[in-house]
Amino acid sequence: MNGKETVLSGIRATGNLHLGNYFGALSKFVRMQRDYDCLYFVADLHALTTNPDPEQLHRNVRSIVAEYLAAGLDPEESTLFVQSDVPEISEMYLLLNMHVGIGELMRTASFKDKARKQLGIKVDEDDENIERQIIGSDSNKRVNAGLLTYPTLMAVDILIQKAHKVPVGKDQEQHLELTRRFARRFNSFYGVELFPEPTNFDFGGKPVKVPGLDGSGKMGKSEGNCIYLIDDEKTLRKKVMRAVTDEGPKTPGQPVSPTVENLFTLLELTSTPEVVKHFRDAYADCSIRYGDLKKQLADDILAITLPIRERILDLQSDDATIGRVLRRGAEIARERASRTLAEVREVMGIRRFY
Amino acid sequence: MNGKETVLSGIRATGNLHLGNYFGALSKFVRMQRDYDCLYFVADLHALTTNPDPEQLHRNVRSIVAEYLAAGLDPEESTLFVQSDVPEISEMYLLLNMHVGIGELMRTASFKDKARKQLGIKVDEDDENIERQIIGSDSNKRVNAGLLTYPTLMAVDILIQKAHKVPVGKDQEQHLELTRRFARRFNSFYGVELFPEPTNFDFGGKPVKVPGLDGSGKMGKSEGNCIYLIDDEKTLRKKVMRAVTDEGPKTPGQPVSPTVENLFTLLELTSTPEVVKHFRDAYADCSIRYGDLKKQLADDILAITLPIRERILDLQSDDATIGRVLRRGAEIARERASRTLAEVREVMGIRRFY
Repeated sequence: MNGKETVLSGIRATGNLHLGNYFGALSKFVRMQRDYDCLYFVADLHALTTNPDPEQLHRNVRSIVAEYLAAGLDPEESTLFVQSDVPEISEMYLLLNMHVGIGELMRTASFKDKARKQLGIKVDEDDENIERQIIGSDSNKRVNAGLLTYPTLMAVDILIQKAHKVPVGKDQEQHLELTRRFARRFNSFYGVELFPEPTNFDFGGKPVKVPGLDGSGKMGKSEGNCIYLIDDEKTLRKKVMRAVTDEGPKTPGQPVSPTVENLFTLLELTSTPEVVKHFRDAYADCSIRYGDLKKQLADDILAITLPIRERILDLQSDDATIGRVLRRGAEIARERASRTLAEVREVMGIRRFY
Repeated sequence: MNGKETVLSGIRATGNLHLGNYFGALSKFVRMQRDYDCLYFVADLHALTTNPDPEQLHRNVRSIVAEYLAAGLDPEESTLFVQSDVPEISEMYLLLNMHVGIGELMRTASFKDKARKQLGIKVDEDDENIERQIIGSDSNKRVNAGLLTYPTLMAVDILIQKAHKVPVGKDQEQHLELTRRFARRFNSFYGVELFPEPTNFDFGGKPVKVPGLDGSGKMGKSEGNCIYLIDDEKTLRKKVMRAVTDEGPKTPGQPVSPTVENLFTLLELTSTPEVVKHFRDAYADCSIRYGDLKKQLADDILAITLPIRERILDLQSDDATIGRVLRRGAEIARERASRTLAEVREVMGIRRFY
């Protein structure tokens, strides 16, 4: 495609986007659109590994699409699609499973971790005990085959689009390594050069850290410490005003505590350098009032999120636009995927007689 | 469909059909066509679990189709299709994997047996040791996820067609039981009545036993003791003339040895009662000459197989007929499968926005 490298990124189909997602990924995706051939997909099939409520899952997919578009993803520049709209992915998932070992799947760190949680096994149990419980578990308390083969599906997402680069976090690096291994193995088993080996997309610079409001180091859905793009003004102001701080500086020039440093970090992401300097100085000479800092922070976050919220609300009730974007995205993704699938089938001897 | 019960049967995509297949299954399938809504499919995806040679696999599928048609399967009365021509099967395989436990798959007898063979583990090793080796095996000597999830795929083959009856042998009974369990589980998890629970198709009467030519009890591909429908006259006569016998009866009325009884059994399947009586009497009064018995047996087998062989050869070079039959079969199978898949997707919350 037009000489640009293909970048693929999957988006979890769970809940709403928060500021951590926005600064950590979304805003980068928006910038990448011009320089790369970008494919973004909502990973609804991956979400099934936890057997979610069907209505909730469908609502989540809609929200995620609306939020990505609202935050600046341009469907004219990028391809945005829903994973389950591309049946070729499922076909290749079955085919690739024939070349993926049970052992290597069972040894994946994220699988062990999730299986452990599902079975209620303590962190300090040794690996062999976890494996024994996975195999031995009765059918009421089971770890499903979808979870085990998650790395196959993720590899297919990437390989079927012949993506060159995939931006993944630390927790997904092992899966990307497995993807490369599966690609090499397939190429070598059939003596072909079908799949390029994808590498991690490096955004360059230092990673963006988006702290939580509860004094913890990272904004995250599960922590309940976060600001959502969809938060209304009242909710958002209340959250920020309740953010954890400390008793305030007593001695000029004393170091800033981690909880308050979190607020400065958020301010640096959302405010002008002048405003940041003003509050840093006020902290240094002990004149700072956290109420003022929080009010300023809430104002500056709202300046970013409120317009996005407006667009989200518009889009969520705009079935025509959502449908048009996803149909177009699916067309492009399917066209690419079906080309790869045809090659894979041919190579494996799965050929039509008509 | 027209009030008839749906019967589904999968055909392994390995090698050629022999007399055991013909009398054990094929000739029954031909008779079933009138009374049931019959679906037969060549299980090429299942064959992939052993990573077959791609060219060989493709040739095998063609042979199997030609042989089934040549032996009397009527594509106007039954639906004959290739598994991989129905992509809805792969889609539902992924979805069903989300409700299938790793433990119940690992405990399947046929999986353990195949995994054991692949890893070269002795029969008398205990189960836990087999499991440990499956998980611990390095990536060069691996048991693949396709083999583990074979029961999921088999369940999908059946459930996606909402088949009522499936003729399975002893080795597949556990898989059919798993299929019922998955059907119940899916229905109950989502509070629907989507899948009927399939039962084993009972042909009635006592099972047909087709013995081998080497004195063993059963004609089977791996034993190299069998007569193929595609055997030419010379090959077939030579095989029968070389069939294992004994020194012949010494005392009038003495019991028939198992090896010679095999030949009588074959004669009973292929000859008239008069001919069988003639040779039984000759055995009883010690006047039998095995050469005559074998010549008669070869003649009678050839009377059945030679016309089939002719049709096989015609069909194997008749791409147009093979293509037309499989296209029509795929259309019918896909129409049914896509209806079921649409229900499954809706129930699980995997819904399109356009």
